[in-house]
Amino acid sequence: MKILLTNDDGVRAPGLAALAEAMGAIGEVFIVAPDREQSAVGHALTLHHPLRATRIGENIFAVDGTPTDCVNLGIHSLLSFKPDIVVSGINRGGNMGDDVTYSGTVSAAMEATLMGIPAIAVSLVTVNEGENFSAAAAFAAKLAGIVCREGLPADTFLNVNVPDLPWKKLRPSLITTQGKRSYEGTIVDKVDPRGRSYYWIGTVDLNFLDIGGSDFFAVSRGHISVTPLHLDLTNYDSLATLKNWDLS
Amino acid sequence: MKILLTNDDGVRAPGLAALAEAMGAIGEVFIVAPDREQSAVGHALTLHHPLRATRIGENIFAVDGTPTDCVNLGIHSLLSFKPDIVVSGINRGGNMGDDVTYSGTVSAAMEATLMGIPAIAVSLVTVNEGENFSAAAAFAAKLAGIVCREGLPADTFLNVNVPDLPWKKLRPSLITTQGKRSYEGTIVDKVDPRGRSYYWIGTVDLNFLDIGGSDFFAVSRGHISVTPLHLDLTNYDSLATLKNWDLS
Repeated sequence: MKILLTNDDGVRAPGLAALAEAMGAIGEVFIVAPDREQSAVGHALTLHHPLRATRIGENIFAVDGTPTDCVNLGIHSLLSFKPDIVVSGINRGGNMGDDVTYSGTVSAAMEATLMGIPAIAVSLVTVNEGENFSAAAAFAAKLAGIVCREGLPADTFLNVNVPDLPWKKLRPSLITTQGKRSYEGTIVDKVDPRGRSYYWIGTVDLNFLDIGGSDFFAVSRGHISVTPLHLDLTNYDSLATLKNWDLS
Repeated sequence: MKILLTNDDGVRAPGLAALAEAMGAIGEVFIVAPDREQSAVGHALTLHHPLRATRIGENIFAVDGTPTDCVNLGIHSLLSFKPDIVVSGINRGGNMGDDVTYSGTVSAAMEATLMGIPAIAVSLVTVNEGENFSAAAAFAAKLAGIVCREGLPADTFLNVNVPDLPWKKLRPSLITTQGKRSYEGTIVDKVDPRGRSYYWIGTVDLNFLDIGGSDFFAVSRGHISVTPLHLDLTNYDSLATLKNWDLS
């Protein structure tokens, strides 16, 4: 079993190291990851300048691009084969609710899905440095084995969020739906030493709605959350209403 | 009616100028747009460095960030009010099928939706410079009026793709579903003047599946496509299957 790993915290992040160790027990691991942190890049592709890939270890490449670039470059150019699964993470910080649309970690799994390769995104829900990457990695390895055996529904990947708890304190995993936050970005508005104003997009606190069955619902109660996500954003329920509009 | 416009082709793009002109007929127009092209940035937020906003005309700001940054900064800092609607575009090039997940144009509408503001993303389907921005803008203005009057379903925005045809040749708009492409990214693999290899993510051709009722289905037959998209990526149909997996 050939496993491609990537992340958005950068090739040297502890979450990736923990993931590589756990995955090494179930297959052959290849890493293609950004050479620096790439958080909140969403599903970005680098189109306007060339990308560099540096081999920094056996089967480990650092790329000066986004997680999406890494999956693209890894599968199209750096690897000589199609991996059996792509696992992205382990991200330092949760990727739940609407945040999945910003997440570099999740977007790497999206890219693999577009290429027809089963994929899992894994995040450790913490606002600190993260203590229990190895527990999250152990679950990810177990899940990866099941995914390779059972397959995934068409155009669907798994978004996994793990509470930052020791293995023994983690409660069983739940299959969940994507939750919802009340997104309140804060913007810092200041003046630089030369008198020009600048803006800095601030941090976002964990303010989710406690929707039964959602990712946040599970994680906030100590469960591992596994959410099947797909790439079809169509709001089917609204089609009938809109078809009544007079757009002629 | 106060209308915030943005795009990902940059504040000086002809598609934005056409949109501003058409929207000026139905309301007061404010523009907060990237100072340069920001295609394929996805739903990216700039978190790691400050943003600059330059006032380059009455009610026009250029920002050195992504379309998502522009919506964020515009609504939180640059404007002193909450706009009635956000319109993003007119993008030079379609944003259909899976491409919506990469699109800066679409992500700006997503960001507005997260903030609870009705939003429309508008794209002119062309692989060239684009000739008929004004026809697309006329439709966008009509649609914006209807959206402000009727409202949109919760957490939903409209993704509009307009064939690059003169107004008289455009066929009526259709309410569509998000289509699907066979995504084949190409990577150019070369050696630079100093002997180091580099990679460049290539262009992507228009290779969509002809799914009845989809955005591509409509546009390829000369219709304007209007797709209601939401931010819930959960694949509900797969929940029951996954709940049968033994993840303990």
